[in-house]
Amino acid sequence: MLLYNSRISGNCYKVRLLLAELGIPYETRDVDVVDRTDPRDFLDGLNPVRRAPTLVLDDGRPLAESNAILWYFGEGTRFVPEDRYDRAKALQWMFFEQYEHEPAIAVARFLKTYSGKPEWWEAQREQLTKRGYKALDALEQGLRGRDWLAGDSMTIADIALYAYTHAADEGGFSLDEYPAIRAWLDRVAAQPGHVEIS
Amino acid sequence: MLLYNSRISGNCYKVRLLLAELGIPYETRDVDVVDRTDPRDFLDGLNPVRRAPTLVLDDGRPLAESNAILWYFGEGTRFVPEDRYDRAKALQWMFFEQYEHEPAIAVARFLKTYSGKPEWWEAQREQLTKRGYKALDALEQGLRGRDWLAGDSMTIADIALYAYTHAADEGGFSLDEYPAIRAWLDRVAAQPGHVEIS
Repeated sequence: MLLYNSRISGNCYKVRLLLAELGIPYETRDVDVVDRTDPRDFLDGLNPVRRAPTLVLDDGRPLAESNAILWYFGEGTRFVPEDRYDRAKALQWMFFEQYEHEPAIAVARFLKTYSGKPEWWEAQREQLTKRGYKALDALEQGLRGRDWLAGDSMTIADIALYAYTHAADEGGFSLDEYPAIRAWLDRVAAQPGHVEIS
Repeated sequence: MLLYNSRISGNCYKVRLLLAELGIPYETRDVDVVDRTDPRDFLDGLNPVRRAPTLVLDDGRPLAESNAILWYFGEGTRFVPEDRYDRAKALQWMFFEQYEHEPAIAVARFLKTYSGKPEWWEAQREQLTKRGYKALDALEQGLRGRDWLAGDSMTIADIALYAYTHAADEGGFSLDEYPAIRAWLDRVAAQPGHVEIS
């Protein structure tokens, strides 16, 4: 199994974290996520938007979108809830992650820490910061009084949100005002099988 | 069952379309999606980002994020594939929809046709148009040689992508160069049980 991977991408880290927790082996090929001029022709026919992560299964079939890959490997394991409502709740948080959270926090982190273009970061800093804190407010609210986002144990929803939240400081975000998030980050990191982003 | 609904929102239309196909009855309460000053306090405790659609099940439990709601009702019906890979493919397209497609095409449509703020549309027109056509290119590529996005019949992935694609002209997009998309839109609209957006 081959994962088109980036070591700095939180979306790729989600996949690596779940596969580590499940003990599933795979190979990687690096995709440069900083050089936007790379045409990434090698992803043609594998992913219509040519992004990492893209996974190629052992039988050659491709799969893309980090959270869809999490679902593929999580289904039937302890990482996808058995209860129908909890499954939908896990997906609710995963769609929240891609719509509200990642476009602010991951983009801020990329521009501030990895892009090498401080002028891009300055141009978008205010808007991304405002939007990112709004997403963190929603996540804090969702975690208040709960250990995990959906059901009673860690699921792929927690993995999906952990990836960029635990690195939010690289996007200029402080978690000081988010006690429920901080306690939850510690819980995720304490799980057996946990791996770091790099 | 109560759906916090907007008649112009494609995200709400997805839910109405699936519930119509499945013959599931529900009540609606309108949410104003144009007036951004509305605090929407009535969604407090139901949806951490206070957006429509938000669904309240008969037992009072809330569910948010259009595509998570589609999964909740689609699971176990013909609208979610039985095959594990096809299920993940359906989710791949649904995450694509929320990350690449909706933020360009739905936002362009809203600004151009519904916002009442032509200056907002002019300010974002170029960027949204470019991004939207990139999403349409990917969708066209995904539909080439296929009738449906995942598996051999219409699934919640087709419903998720249909909602804003069929109204893309309201965002200034032409589908003239997208024959696979146009044929697929006709297939979706020809399904028994289909309902219009309003």
